[in-house]
Amino acid sequence: MLTAWALAAPAPAAAQSPRPEWTIATDAAFDASSIAPYEGRHDRVYARIDRDLDAHLAQLQRWVRQRSISAQDDGIDAMAQLVADDLRELGFQEVEVVQTPGHPGVFGHYDAGADRTLVVYMMYDVQPVEENWRIADPFAGELVDHELGTVLMARGATNQKGPQRAFLNAVGAILQEHGTLPVNLYVVAEGEEELGSPNFGAVIEPYLDRLRDADGAFFPMNIQMPDGSVALNLGVKGIIYFELEARGGDWGGPAKAEVHGSLKAMVDSPALRLVQAIASMTSADGNTILVPGYYDAVRPPSDEEQRLINGLARRADDAALQKAFGVSRWIDGMRGRDAIVRNLFDPTLNINGIWSGYTGEGMKTILPHVATAKIDSRLPPGLEPEDAYRMIREHLDAEGFEDIALRRLSGYPAAATPVDAPLVQAAIGVFNRYDASPRVAPWLAGSAPFYQFTRTLGLPFVFGGLGHGAGAHAPDEYMLVRPAEGVKAAGLAEIEKSYVDLLYALSEAESD
Amino acid sequence: MLTAWALAAPAPAAAQSPRPEWTIATDAAFDASSIAPYEGRHDRVYARIDRDLDAHLAQLQRWVRQRSISAQDDGIDAMAQLVADDLRELGFQEVEVVQTPGHPGVFGHYDAGADRTLVVYMMYDVQPVEENWRIADPFAGELVDHELGTVLMARGATNQKGPQRAFLNAVGAILQEHGTLPVNLYVVAEGEEELGSPNFGAVIEPYLDRLRDADGAFFPMNIQMPDGSVALNLGVKGIIYFELEARGGDWGGPAKAEVHGSLKAMVDSPALRLVQAIASMTSADGNTILVPGYYDAVRPPSDEEQRLINGLARRADDAALQKAFGVSRWIDGMRGRDAIVRNLFDPTLNINGIWSGYTGEGMKTILPHVATAKIDSRLPPGLEPEDAYRMIREHLDAEGFEDIALRRLSGYPAAATPVDAPLVQAAIGVFNRYDASPRVAPWLAGSAPFYQFTRTLGLPFVFGGLGHGAGAHAPDEYMLVRPAEGVKAAGLAEIEKSYVDLLYALSEAESD
Repeated sequence: MLTAWALAAPAPAAAQSPRPEWTIATDAAFDASSIAPYEGRHDRVYARIDRDLDAHLAQLQRWVRQRSISAQDDGIDAMAQLVADDLRELGFQEVEVVQTPGHPGVFGHYDAGADRTLVVYMMYDVQPVEENWRIADPFAGELVDHELGTVLMARGATNQKGPQRAFLNAVGAILQEHGTLPVNLYVVAEGEEELGSPNFGAVIEPYLDRLRDADGAFFPMNIQMPDGSVALNLGVKGIIYFELEARGGDWGGPAKAEVHGSLKAMVDSPALRLVQAIASMTSADGNTILVPGYYDAVRPPSDEEQRLINGLARRADDAALQKAFGVSRWIDGMRGRDAIVRNLFDPTLNINGIWSGYTGEGMKTILPHVATAKIDSRLPPGLEPEDAYRMIREHLDAEGFEDIALRRLSGYPAAATPVDAPLVQAAIGVFNRYDASPRVAPWLAGSAPFYQFTRTLGLPFVFGGLGHGAGAHAPDEYMLVRPAEGVKAAGLAEIEKSYVDLLYALSEAESD
Repeated sequence: MLTAWALAAPAPAAAQSPRPEWTIATDAAFDASSIAPYEGRHDRVYARIDRDLDAHLAQLQRWVRQRSISAQDDGIDAMAQLVADDLRELGFQEVEVVQTPGHPGVFGHYDAGADRTLVVYMMYDVQPVEENWRIADPFAGELVDHELGTVLMARGATNQKGPQRAFLNAVGAILQEHGTLPVNLYVVAEGEEELGSPNFGAVIEPYLDRLRDADGAFFPMNIQMPDGSVALNLGVKGIIYFELEARGGDWGGPAKAEVHGSLKAMVDSPALRLVQAIASMTSADGNTILVPGYYDAVRPPSDEEQRLINGLARRADDAALQKAFGVSRWIDGMRGRDAIVRNLFDPTLNINGIWSGYTGEGMKTILPHVATAKIDSRLPPGLEPEDAYRMIREHLDAEGFEDIALRRLSGYPAAATPVDAPLVQAAIGVFNRYDASPRVAPWLAGSAPFYQFTRTLGLPFVFGGLGHGAGAHAPDEYMLVRPAEGVKAAGLAEIEKSYVDLLYALSEAESD
């Protein structure tokens, strides 16, 4: 179902760098506003949404009031049950709580007898709660006055219970008015997204053959900014996340505990070994990966991706982005399209954390016996996690760092959906209807295990939607439900109506 | 007063390594047992020590019961006053509490009208107190049954109040029996040794001209092992201790806070920069320093040092030492004399600590904006701290790491005393009398600011003495005061008698 990637020949790499030069061979640019706005009208459903909005908001509050912190196993089983009960209440004919080696998932099927079928991905778990919220209880589901308007401020308000329950409100409104849905729905929900989705495969495994027959998968998400703008990413990079650890042992160095720092003239230093091992993996500026073969598997931008990149480049604002991140320049002084291409197509190697020995004030003179680094590498399409791990291990061994342990914490491949998939076209048409013509990127430089949809299930996959929220993984998480005057992001009613439109637009789209 | 160093020509360095090969051109070996045991008898003083031993032990207890934690400014002024009062009580004609920019020092002078003069260095501060002592109160000065015998268990018991007050007990016993001392004494005490002696120069500065006229300096210390053996080090390596820090800024990278790890394709990583900068300073095994010029200033072993090294090599036990440290091998598989020479003559570069970003459990995907390492370098004689700092900064700049900050935390040169100095010969003679013929090393691979004695004052300097203690900077610090049957380390009475002997031996030694 995915468009075959057209291969553009890459320019020869600079002699001193294995980093490829990516060629953009076309001036054509994708423009989302060229796609016709969705024009269907579902006034009875819209009117019900407006009429029932308080009750709909109460449903969001009910969801965020149920604790479901996966990392602390706090409220998980109750939340899984709540999701399952809500699906049954809506009329899903088949609902199962699916046991896994970790937290349970939820499977639901609404068979509308329709031609089109949509898989809806949900995560019912939330992050732990930090200190310093402006509200007393992040699980109280309070409505709070915010500069952007009235917001639902709670853990999970935007990540991800708010938009998910809003989607189910839209489904409910259609069912109440019309007694059925324009598309068949599968819901697959997991309770471990905040843990890296280690068992999501086990949630969908019993249903793979059924899910593969769907026409696409969707993850409801608030991706609108207060000015109304929307960025639509058609996929994500993959990732490997691992720890490298140097520890004294048979090769040398202290094995049991730190020793006095003065012994360095006789004793190997695990900390220096780790530093040398990591250093061997990149150029001196830290920006080119020197692991042999690491760039070879990355495929160059396809024609479609080149057009998407050109479209993004027209709206690129490096200065604003750099300011937002507190960065003075991109690496190598890149700007505009060059930066966009590198951000999408270059694999990365990044130290997330490193630690060894004494890290307090002043001086303590020790030679630590262990040194550890957390490292991630983002994988563009083509670079497989297993290959990335293998190349890194082979590189370390070839450089003489057999003593460095490599502990795998995560690994999954990239995911991407072609822009001409009916589900994508339908989503853009709906955005355009609400004056929110999106910036469309081939994928996000960040990572999520969405390959489960694009690759395991072979489905086009869209994650997004109208609406605004912030504070995921942070204090004062909120979802905007009633925008203030002048704020252009959608409120709850408009969000729900757009979900209604999306379901109908998908049902009406031409087959690909 | 220091013996001129005879220069032996070094062998050419291996082509791939700037690390010099040190040549030992003689088979002659220094043997401390060849020095005649001290034979003087001071029976009246010994008898008084035996008679007053309980009172002497009470003096040690009185000292450890006075808190004096320099890092926490806990009891510091009271302890300085206590030291000054004790010197006056003993009969020192001149006693001053010396103000400095930090904690005060104490200066005392006992003018015996003798030909010889000894400077006694003391530190009256102690380390902070950890948890998990086997006694309730580390400042109670309790006597505790220990497998080695009766010990005084307290913070400061061996580091350094115990041996210092034992020395003053010996001084007191001589004065009580004979009304004067065989040598004149200066006491210079500081309250910041545990902080790296930042103001010890200010303590001695007003007295430099008087102190320079002394014949040597002495630091009472328990350096005996339970089997009776003694290692006498004639000096210490110097040290520089610094932090390297990479922080996002004009050169690139996030300046204000961490950013999302997926940005690595566009954003420079301060953590990778720090790793690359440190890596550039050593060979891949972490054992050869690649900072240009770093080995050039180190002078090769003199004839005397070669003889000392040969003497040490005859008693070297690599396996036992490695076992004690939990190390399987010395670097490059060195053994015996080779390891001893490298340990004494090679400068080191050692990571004491390194930290950046997320260091907790599991995964957090960030690109940290700051990365820091604590690094020390031990400096053999010839390599000056200022030169070492300059070469490291020049190296970083030449390698393109101008953005890496170098923060100096400490720096002082090596110190060494020739083995034929009368004070050293006197000390060895006293050790030999007590069947504790020492292993004599040119210097310790560790560091202390003893250059203040050897270089600022130009005096031979001995730190040591009979007696055993352990737990400096750790829980259950103790000094052995009444050895159990079979334990050969000296008890308090014998320690004090050996100090009496040392003062007389020095007064009787031939002039150099």
